[in-house]
Amino acid sequence: MPDQQRADARRNYARILAVAEAEVATHGAAASLEQIARTAEVGSATVRRHFPTRRALLEAVSKGRVEVLRGRAHELTDAGDSRTALLEWLGDVVTYCVTARGLAAALSYDDTTDSVHENSCAATIHEAGEPLLRRAIRDGAVAPDVTIADLITLIIGITLATETLPDPAPRAHHLFRLATAGLSPRG
Amino acid sequence: MPDQQRADARRNYARILAVAEAEVATHGAAASLEQIARTAEVGSATVRRHFPTRRALLEAVSKGRVEVLRGRAHELTDAGDSRTALLEWLGDVVTYCVTARGLAAALSYDDTTDSVHENSCAATIHEAGEPLLRRAIRDGAVAPDVTIADLITLIIGITLATETLPDPAPRAHHLFRLATAGLSPRG
Repeated sequence: MPDQQRADARRNYARILAVAEAEVATHGAAASLEQIARTAEVGSATVRRHFPTRRALLEAVSKGRVEVLRGRAHELTDAGDSRTALLEWLGDVVTYCVTARGLAAALSYDDTTDSVHENSCAATIHEAGEPLLRRAIRDGAVAPDVTIADLITLIIGITLATETLPDPAPRAHHLFRLATAGLSPRG
Repeated sequence: MPDQQRADARRNYARILAVAEAEVATHGAAASLEQIARTAEVGSATVRRHFPTRRALLEAVSKGRVEVLRGRAHELTDAGDSRTALLEWLGDVVTYCVTARGLAAALSYDDTTDSVHENSCAATIHEAGEPLLRRAIRDGAVAPDVTIADLITLIIGITLATETLPDPAPRAHHLFRLATAGLSPRG
């Protein structure tokens, strides 16, 4: 493939993925491939060349969002107050998990591939959060026995317990704030 | 039915239910009706007269355990420290939810009846916990915006997030203690 064609293909891929992320954020796993092609101003055949199946598209979107979480964790490692930085990042994880449920359900028809994919996402999220938690513990802002696995398991539980609500995000964030603040009166 | 026969039937019912509770606690919904009859020292026919189906038995066990939670809440309303009393009762709810998962799964083959049954159990648990929470808030030991629905939803989430572990109870209790204590260093 000549350089120009290769550059076009990369640009198309990036544009389709960006549009797909926006579509999935709005419509979940029901996002329409045809609508994605229209919004990205490419033909359906181009979408299908980059993402031969709906599953391939959803996996790419999911992986992209995990990469964003990883980048965010990296940025926040140098940000001001270490407890605030940790809580801000965990809030992003809550948002990711709440919106990722539809994706996870859509991806779950093939157990083997799915669990490999989910496990690699989970491992990436754990690794990304670890430095933020360690810094907050070092600063004495978080109890030393709290683990990143504890926090992610709490988030997953809250996601599962709220997923049948019509608008789960606000409730999930409320419950996670409660779980990180504890029951004692604030201030 | 003469009085003596009626008294025998009541005694048998109570004995079968007690044995069934113990069997379900050990073996979950897989508890054997035949084993229950043997341990209760009654015939299988007697078990089937009181509980015509496995479902009827599991529902009676579940209802019995919710009644125990209600009684416990009532006792604890007068107990010493109001925050300790609330946390002790919530710990019992964690234990109930973790062990009730098998029951819930076994009962879920009939959606309509199941949700009515589960909803009545959930409502009983909510009502039972309300006075314990109100007292702890009045004492300034718990933030005034915490609701019993928040706490039960957190427990349900933790139950769901830990249910695939071989021994979920210790992990579930650990996570619930974390969620009630919050992230800040203790003491």
